[in-house]
Amino acid sequence: MRAVVLNSRGGPEVLGIEDVPDPVPGPYEVRVRIRATALNRADILQRKGGYADPRPGLTHEIPGLEFSGVVESVGARVTMWKPGDRVMAIDAGGAHAQMICTHERQLLRVPDRISAGGAYAELICTHERQLMPVPTTVPLGDAAAIPEVFLTAWDALVVQGGLTSGRWALVHAGASGVGTAAIQIAKAIGARIAVTCSLAKMDACRNLGADLVAERSPHDWLEEVQRKVPGGVDVILDVVGGDEVERNLRAVANKGRIIQVGLMGGATTPVNVGLLLMKRVTWIGTTLRSRPIEEKVAVTRRFASEVLPLFDDGKLTPVIDTRFALADIARAHAHMESNANTGKILIDVDTAVE
Amino acid sequence: MRAVVLNSRGGPEVLGIEDVPDPVPGPYEVRVRIRATALNRADILQRKGGYADPRPGLTHEIPGLEFSGVVESVGARVTMWKPGDRVMAIDAGGAHAQMICTHERQLLRVPDRISAGGAYAELICTHERQLMPVPTTVPLGDAAAIPEVFLTAWDALVVQGGLTSGRWALVHAGASGVGTAAIQIAKAIGARIAVTCSLAKMDACRNLGADLVAERSPHDWLEEVQRKVPGGVDVILDVVGGDEVERNLRAVANKGRIIQVGLMGGATTPVNVGLLLMKRVTWIGTTLRSRPIEEKVAVTRRFASEVLPLFDDGKLTPVIDTRFALADIARAHAHMESNANTGKILIDVDTAVE
Repeated sequence: MRAVVLNSRGGPEVLGIEDVPDPVPGPYEVRVRIRATALNRADILQRKGGYADPRPGLTHEIPGLEFSGVVESVGARVTMWKPGDRVMAIDAGGAHAQMICTHERQLLRVPDRISAGGAYAELICTHERQLMPVPTTVPLGDAAAIPEVFLTAWDALVVQGGLTSGRWALVHAGASGVGTAAIQIAKAIGARIAVTCSLAKMDACRNLGADLVAERSPHDWLEEVQRKVPGGVDVILDVVGGDEVERNLRAVANKGRIIQVGLMGGATTPVNVGLLLMKRVTWIGTTLRSRPIEEKVAVTRRFASEVLPLFDDGKLTPVIDTRFALADIARAHAHMESNANTGKILIDVDTAVE
Repeated sequence: MRAVVLNSRGGPEVLGIEDVPDPVPGPYEVRVRIRATALNRADILQRKGGYADPRPGLTHEIPGLEFSGVVESVGARVTMWKPGDRVMAIDAGGAHAQMICTHERQLLRVPDRISAGGAYAELICTHERQLMPVPTTVPLGDAAAIPEVFLTAWDALVVQGGLTSGRWALVHAGASGVGTAAIQIAKAIGARIAVTCSLAKMDACRNLGADLVAERSPHDWLEEVQRKVPGGVDVILDVVGGDEVERNLRAVANKGRIIQVGLMGGATTPVNVGLLLMKRVTWIGTTLRSRPIEEKVAVTRRFASEVLPLFDDGKLTPVIDTRFALADIARAHAHMESNANTGKILIDVDTAVE
């Protein structure tokens, strides 16, 4: 098959396309012919060398954390899927999945390792319980824009943040993939949401339904949020960190939760622990990428039950910024690094797959 | 009645004893004749002016967050207690409790205010559901050493921290009131516990059953904990903050929890948010003092069910450092500020109460 292979670390130019051996599904795995994949910030970090290669002995390191496609073949013990099914998934990877199969009955022994992906390719093998059906209302080529950002936003706001109807969320980078998913999810469950973003993207956030859209720092978004939500916001989803940490602690309500999903603003920062204490704040660091397989399967199955129906109801829709052909993967990475996107950047791996 | 009244803010010398009017119980309240009260760090902060007086119009500000004593009279709607019952409680306060009674059926409207205490006195009125029975094996005069530290340690380690059998806790200031309670609770539920403390107090912590006792910072306790618990500790109870924050993030396990109960090391500190994120740490700020009445009652009732039986079983016992007469309250405060104590500092309000 054709795949994007990382042979060295650096700028977008290190993303080369090669012929590599087709992956072979294990007994609990499904082989999917990929229609589209999508970019994530973690891919940029991986390309630059921010993740150590987690799979010793792996012959090809193929990035890509999510995909949509059609089931091509299934392993001997697969019960959920058959060839021709429209599927999508997050965070798979050839050698990783092979290892998972070996330990199907002994999940406690699966090490907590970081997958390198595998979705920038024509074929991928994934554990059957990590796959989800593509909602009937979503074109197969758009579905790759769903898994990572909708699952991340829902897991952060609802599962870990406890967001419910009537409560307020605050999300930074409101026009990002995660931000656009967060706005839709908050509105779909009856919650209220404030977002911050750059001036050029404020209308896009309003059009998605955000209740308060404030220009991002250094503009004083805190004062705007405090005026609108005097009691403080209940849940903050933050991909920035850095200078926003202090403002988050001031914006959050007593007993509120801050879910730290990213660190675009820097790793080490001064923190007013007194505010954390007196407001009884819960501050949770989280990533999807580093979770062990049993946690990934559990959150995927719950997402399929609780969130996928909202796509069929028309309450959620993938937000797509741009599409690139697989051959243009380097240009796609450069586009993400320019921070100009609103929503997801998709890669059409093979438009003939349907 | 006689009571310690704060008429100004400052050193131990501002603690004067005066005659003040007896408190009158509301319909859901119990009036308790106090046998003993106990000191807490929050009392020092209150004496110095660290808390604004939360009760406008209050004629006398009486500190004191916990007590043991005997029920003297009960309000018209009290069902749980009768005169003569041996009781103990945490965090009551006359005017505060009066306000609570008014809103018994409308708890949502009770503001989240900070109580100023009220237990440095001969009588106190407390909502009946905040009272607990004194364990039969504990002398009434010792029981005032139980509520604040055992409830704080249990709430932090078990309720918020999720400590269970087989898991590791780490507690700083292991010889403090909270620390000595934490060691006993961890061992009583089958967990393992590491503590840090000053060199002079290490034997006391070992004698209480701590599995690892390390000298506190600047000694390198982190290296000792990492050698003993290579996977990281599951729950950290920290009353220090400051320089310990970075070490806590290094000592905690993936998906571990840090419960921040105090800030003796300073309020604002640099934090490695990258570690919080990659290890998926949950960092929770907490205080008992600022909780609304419905939360205080809920945690008190659960504590009575889950922890008080362990005193009867002989698995938990109050650790008492020293006792002072009420007239020596200023000397007692000075003793706490010297940091020489192991366990609780008690005030014998009236040794004739039994």
